[in-house]
Amino acid sequence: MKEIIIATNNKGKIEEFNDIFENKVILRTLKEVGFEGEIIENGNTFIENALIKCKTIYDIYKKPVLADDSGLCVNALEGAPGVFSARYGDEGLTDKDRYLLLLKNLEGKNDRTAAFVCALVLYKNPNQIYVIQEEFKGEITKNPRGENGFGYDPVFFLKDYDKTVAELPNEIKNKISHRAKASFIMKKIIFAL
Amino acid sequence: MKEIIIATNNKGKIEEFNDIFENKVILRTLKEVGFEGEIIENGNTFIENALIKCKTIYDIYKKPVLADDSGLCVNALEGAPGVFSARYGDEGLTDKDRYLLLLKNLEGKNDRTAAFVCALVLYKNPNQIYVIQEEFKGEITKNPRGENGFGYDPVFFLKDYDKTVAELPNEIKNKISHRAKASFIMKKIIFAL
Repeated sequence: MKEIIIATNNKGKIEEFNDIFENKVILRTLKEVGFEGEIIENGNTFIENALIKCKTIYDIYKKPVLADDSGLCVNALEGAPGVFSARYGDEGLTDKDRYLLLLKNLEGKNDRTAAFVCALVLYKNPNQIYVIQEEFKGEITKNPRGENGFGYDPVFFLKDYDKTVAELPNEIKNKISHRAKASFIMKKIIFAL
Repeated sequence: MKEIIIATNNKGKIEEFNDIFENKVILRTLKEVGFEGEIIENGNTFIENALIKCKTIYDIYKKPVLADDSGLCVNALEGAPGVFSARYGDEGLTDKDRYLLLLKNLEGKNDRTAAFVCALVLYKNPNQIYVIQEEFKGEITKNPRGENGFGYDPVFFLKDYDKTVAELPNEIKNKISHRAKASFIMKKIIFAL
């Protein structure tokens, strides 16, 4: 596979993928292929949402598409916020509003275990589809710490590092995260195809 | 991963997987783990059906599960019989009834291209899921030929071999089929986990 459309315009994500895939495939953003529509991610799972993104773009351009969908699953909340991580609480909230809401909803709960989950889908064509869903385990803190990253990073604590993800340098996060794990496995598939 | 439950009781399939995975994992059948229920495969895609099988078994035994779902997709019939391959026509039909029905439905169609498709899912736990969907391309003949294999094999013609799949020895089919292709990629994942 020489060329893959990535269903994102996020430059950080593309740099991350280019790095992991060792620049051996040409990654095109949605902007580069001219896609200006909206993709309705109404799946019930990360895998469904990533498949919806891929299928929407493949059906227009008929070229291999890579898409991911990620979120935070908290055990004491039965997996919430899950696929609603980026819209937890209300549409207009900031990242900070959302993680403060999460801390509030976890008040009094002893089980603070959680996992970031990433479903990464490579949709080569309707018959050849590859899905890797990986996790990144941690615990929800009682108070936010750190300034790096985004989303729930300030309240996601890693025992092995004695730090929240927001206290980790990006270079480390990008080696151990849910998306990194999924991408490393996907790399094996892309190189084998 | 040391032990995987295979969501099947088909001995042929298990031997095939043992062969491909080089006996490096212990594969347990549904019978061996004591599952006697029925799994309702009501998904719209091969991937959905294989995920349903995995989830049903995982939720009971809490151990990694491998499941596949396969079918024949005929281009002139817009992908039919697809997920309905094993029930094409009517519930009580034989394999022969079904491929004869397919030939009838293709009468007068010039485009005979088709693909066997296999979705193979390894469900390690709800957060770690791996899906490989592969295809095996061919053409639908006008008349059945050959006695090997099962299902639509007698009407599925391979130009490269100048034979239908039912005319191929099993050893060859098991190296080039949709399930073989998916299994070889899955092997890389299982060995990497």
